[in-house]
Amino acid sequence: MIIDCHGHYTTAPAALEAWRRRQIAAIGEPGNAPTRASLAITDDEIRESLENAQLRMQRERGTDLTFFSPRASVMAHHIGDAATSLEWARVCNDLIRRVCTLYPDNFVGVCQLPQSPGVRPENCIPELERCINELGFVGCNLNPDPSGGHWKEPPLTDRWWYPLYEKMVELDVPAMVHVSSSCNPCFHATGAHYINADTTAFMQFLLSDLFKDFPTLRFIIPHGGGAAPYHWGRYRGIAQDLKRPPFAELLLKNVFFDTCVYHRPGIELLLKVVPADNILFASEMVGAVRGIDPETGHHYDDTRRYLEPIDWLSAEDRGKIFEGNARRVFPRFGARTARAVNAAQSA
Amino acid sequence: MIIDCHGHYTTAPAALEAWRRRQIAAIGEPGNAPTRASLAITDDEIRESLENAQLRMQRERGTDLTFFSPRASVMAHHIGDAATSLEWARVCNDLIRRVCTLYPDNFVGVCQLPQSPGVRPENCIPELERCINELGFVGCNLNPDPSGGHWKEPPLTDRWWYPLYEKMVELDVPAMVHVSSSCNPCFHATGAHYINADTTAFMQFLLSDLFKDFPTLRFIIPHGGGAAPYHWGRYRGIAQDLKRPPFAELLLKNVFFDTCVYHRPGIELLLKVVPADNILFASEMVGAVRGIDPETGHHYDDTRRYLEPIDWLSAEDRGKIFEGNARRVFPRFGARTARAVNAAQSA
Repeated sequence: MIIDCHGHYTTAPAALEAWRRRQIAAIGEPGNAPTRASLAITDDEIRESLENAQLRMQRERGTDLTFFSPRASVMAHHIGDAATSLEWARVCNDLIRRVCTLYPDNFVGVCQLPQSPGVRPENCIPELERCINELGFVGCNLNPDPSGGHWKEPPLTDRWWYPLYEKMVELDVPAMVHVSSSCNPCFHATGAHYINADTTAFMQFLLSDLFKDFPTLRFIIPHGGGAAPYHWGRYRGIAQDLKRPPFAELLLKNVFFDTCVYHRPGIELLLKVVPADNILFASEMVGAVRGIDPETGHHYDDTRRYLEPIDWLSAEDRGKIFEGNARRVFPRFGARTARAVNAAQSA
Repeated sequence: MIIDCHGHYTTAPAALEAWRRRQIAAIGEPGNAPTRASLAITDDEIRESLENAQLRMQRERGTDLTFFSPRASVMAHHIGDAATSLEWARVCNDLIRRVCTLYPDNFVGVCQLPQSPGVRPENCIPELERCINELGFVGCNLNPDPSGGHWKEPPLTDRWWYPLYEKMVELDVPAMVHVSSSCNPCFHATGAHYINADTTAFMQFLLSDLFKDFPTLRFIIPHGGGAAPYHWGRYRGIAQDLKRPPFAELLLKNVFFDTCVYHRPGIELLLKVVPADNILFASEMVGAVRGIDPETGHHYDDTRRYLEPIDWLSAEDRGKIFEGNARRVFPRFGARTARAVNAAQSA
């Protein structure tokens, strides 16, 4: 079985974006804000949005299941206030739930959090609990920079975030560290801000004793861990100069990387330097890169194609990367089927 | 011959740091600012600061020559104003000149610029001209974020920077894109801010037609290009989705990467994906990582050791990476010896 731990609903029906535009237009005029119930999307529209995109790609690429979350680039936590973010997160998460209900074998939910710049992260706890306990989701996306490229929040290792981490530990759900769009003109969203955030988060974890405080807290750093694996020697060296413990003790029980790296040399590097226990298969599809690589004739984000021919990857490690690690890092998925995960909660 | 295109005077005598502390203490009280002439460092102190550090490492590692610039992490362009930065840059650049005078075979100068947040980059032109025309330097370090981690300057591809680029083209000198310390608690300097800046600069270049406006402008992106080579497929794919030209046409005549990547798998990746014409040997020594890797028994930043045993690297490409590209990208060095470069200007 192949589990893709990182997929976004980037193809949602246009009515979702229209609802968001109405919501943004009404900021400061609460009386004009659209209700959640006013979002009219039919089941057929949802099917249509997926059949020729994520579902077709699952079939064509031979992956079985996607951990599916709202489109990351439009989370845009910097827009409006915490109430804005909460309504938007609920709308987006509810739509993911509908996807999981329609395709219970193909998708399992991961939620967007109602973060807002400068607002304490405990404000996210009710929506996290709703998504996990009522919608059957198995994880969340946590934005280390709700300002959208201005980086005004404390580091992820600051006690600022601890109440949310306590709830994550209690619910036994991991977070993917995932920023949203950039409103800083220096940073292109998917080309710079995403990758920088991944690198930044890794370095924050390296410097901190966060995982002494939360031994079972787990993060997935997406996009192959940003720059971290490429600079693995640099990071090992910086940690050593700073008298930090070896990575195995410092963070490898808690920090995982996905395989959203869109060429074979990058995937090979990731597999060479990061232990197989810390790598989760993913494609980010439909995501940052949609084209076909003329050098291979296949989609850049068809990451299974890079992994499959690597003959020095043992069957055991392959099994961990494609399936086992996802089941372990997302214990609410655990040993179950997607259908069982989705069914247990829709009752 | 092996040219290390990226070395900093991180071991300067303590009097330099003391001078800087006095300068900072006097911000707002110009009458109390130390004069440049008040910095008292003897030739012997300079020799001592180098003999057991950069010079010993050159000998032990078998490199011949370092393109040497002031310590990057203390450029700290965010401190004080443009006048503060100018005095500090002059002091630091003059010290580099003294190093080059004492060791004319071992070092060639690269200058710090007197940038200051929000100040138009043309303010750097006089100091750039002084360093190139009077001190015999061959390049400069350009900080894309003089705010120190808040990223308030326009992207490097904005016309904001054009007057400085016009002067760089006229003088025929490249810039290494190099940030300084971070005063944003989210970003560790050498572990996050440096690498993020490299990634950010690459993405800015990818999006822009800067090199149509300046066909001979050249940048070195240090630290192996940040995350760019690891995510080469992502970047090729994003460029393709955006209908940008192929990299060869878009930026490979103008953008170069150094080899400051501190483990063999990272160096191998760099050599696999980036054309040999675009890679310049460097170690960053004495820089971000000072320790010895227990896995190899050698210094993390002894980057020659990663390159040497790679048997699929042709002699021709090896020659480009170790020497030829540096001579080409820094034409004021060109075909000459370090001694000739240094002597020509000290007359």
